[in-house]
Amino acid sequence: MRSAFYISDGTAITAETFGHATLSLFPVEFKHITIPFVETVEKAREVKSQLEQAASFSHEKPIVFLTFVNPELSEIIQSSNAICYDFISTFSAQIQRELNVEPVPKVHRTHSIHEQSYDYRIAAVNYALANDDGANIKDYDQADVVLVGVSRSGKTPTSLYLALQYGIKAANYPFTPDDLESGELPRCLQPYKDKLFGLTIEPQRLAAIRNERMANSRYASLRQCRIEIREVEMLYKRFKIPHFNSTHHSVEEISAKIMAESGLQRRKY
Amino acid sequence: MRSAFYISDGTAITAETFGHATLSLFPVEFKHITIPFVETVEKAREVKSQLEQAASFSHEKPIVFLTFVNPELSEIIQSSNAICYDFISTFSAQIQRELNVEPVPKVHRTHSIHEQSYDYRIAAVNYALANDDGANIKDYDQADVVLVGVSRSGKTPTSLYLALQYGIKAANYPFTPDDLESGELPRCLQPYKDKLFGLTIEPQRLAAIRNERMANSRYASLRQCRIEIREVEMLYKRFKIPHFNSTHHSVEEISAKIMAESGLQRRKY
Repeated sequence: MRSAFYISDGTAITAETFGHATLSLFPVEFKHITIPFVETVEKAREVKSQLEQAASFSHEKPIVFLTFVNPELSEIIQSSNAICYDFISTFSAQIQRELNVEPVPKVHRTHSIHEQSYDYRIAAVNYALANDDGANIKDYDQADVVLVGVSRSGKTPTSLYLALQYGIKAANYPFTPDDLESGELPRCLQPYKDKLFGLTIEPQRLAAIRNERMANSRYASLRQCRIEIREVEMLYKRFKIPHFNSTHHSVEEISAKIMAESGLQRRKY
Repeated sequence: MRSAFYISDGTAITAETFGHATLSLFPVEFKHITIPFVETVEKAREVKSQLEQAASFSHEKPIVFLTFVNPELSEIIQSSNAICYDFISTFSAQIQRELNVEPVPKVHRTHSIHEQSYDYRIAAVNYALANDDGANIKDYDQADVVLVGVSRSGKTPTSLYLALQYGIKAANYPFTPDDLESGELPRCLQPYKDKLFGLTIEPQRLAAIRNERMANSRYASLRQCRIEIREVEMLYKRFKIPHFNSTHHSVEEISAKIMAESGLQRRKY
């Protein structure tokens, strides 16, 4: 099997993400190998011999996706018997011509603690944990968004993704059957109506998820799920709460939708 | 100010990540605008006029990073009065020549619920939450890795990042001062010695983080932090637990280090 390498003097996360997105277009199986933190000439030379072993082992040159801050190390890798794609350099050369501005060697990498937004992002993770599942209803004034929905409609993973990936402070509040039956917004949410974003989900899918947690319970019954979903959707309409059906969507898709619809600005790229 | 657009018929997360990594090499300020879910010809034409307005407003063509599954929509965007970079297509053409294989139009996008690993990844998030901070010590047999360290050394955000980004099940256990004083591994960890990965941190930084949580407490005092860090590092040495100093590193860097040193394979790209 042909090898695909993701190599960097940083985390190699950008190389992995981009390389895998591109390779997955082809119906070809690869052996994937990630080598992060190639920060010395010695280590780069070791990687070069690893690439050459891979080439002679599979009789095909490995495909290499690389991102390096240090050009000397990048050159060592690119002198290997391998097909190397340095996509950031390729595009930065094009952009340089367009902007007519020289790129500045990056001191701070893409996934570093020195990014401006880093502390904010970690604070957002801690906020999401402290304000998960209605655990704390006193700090909604600090929220960028308050996700609402019935139990197990996808609020928690979405809150965490919004925090880690976008630096957005997302609290989440689960509507109980009692909340729903009243047809009113719970009092703790009323002052924050403009921050609310609702999730909904198909009753069948909700019942399946709840059954994994509490099999054969009333909570997990299709009947109960149907009632809760009907009531929550009525609530969204009545109070004009923007909402999204999460049934067929990933946390990334739900989060991107929330960002786009709420007009929130990401604090980290 | 010149505009940079990130446009996709999916979440636009790949376009944002890659575009921002590339633009940040240049000492130029941009106005960043993300437009996800451009899924119809109508919507694509709206975006095209938005781009043309941006061009006439700033007297400079906007820079556009785009990723589209649907080529018809991509062409509408690329016919705008803008500088468009379609980096996946650029590289897939090169890789096609190298592999001599035609790319297959992607049915499932990069950030979709249909990815093989999606359910696993959400299960990993739920696992991380249920096994956070020593909350549950009975399910370590299911862990891919058990992060250990003193309170506030970075275990929780790292566990969540490993789950969301790599699909890795990470539990985390905080050593108490009593655990450390004994000089032994807590009994609940002993059967899982091979899964342990330790975090450590400089005492000054630890004291600063703890002070934010509990100002002027014994817990946050530099003296207490120094004692705990000295003892935890002795424990790592005594039991040969791989470990990493998180002081100057982001969750992405810590996670990439853990993946590389433990030989774990990511379950999601």
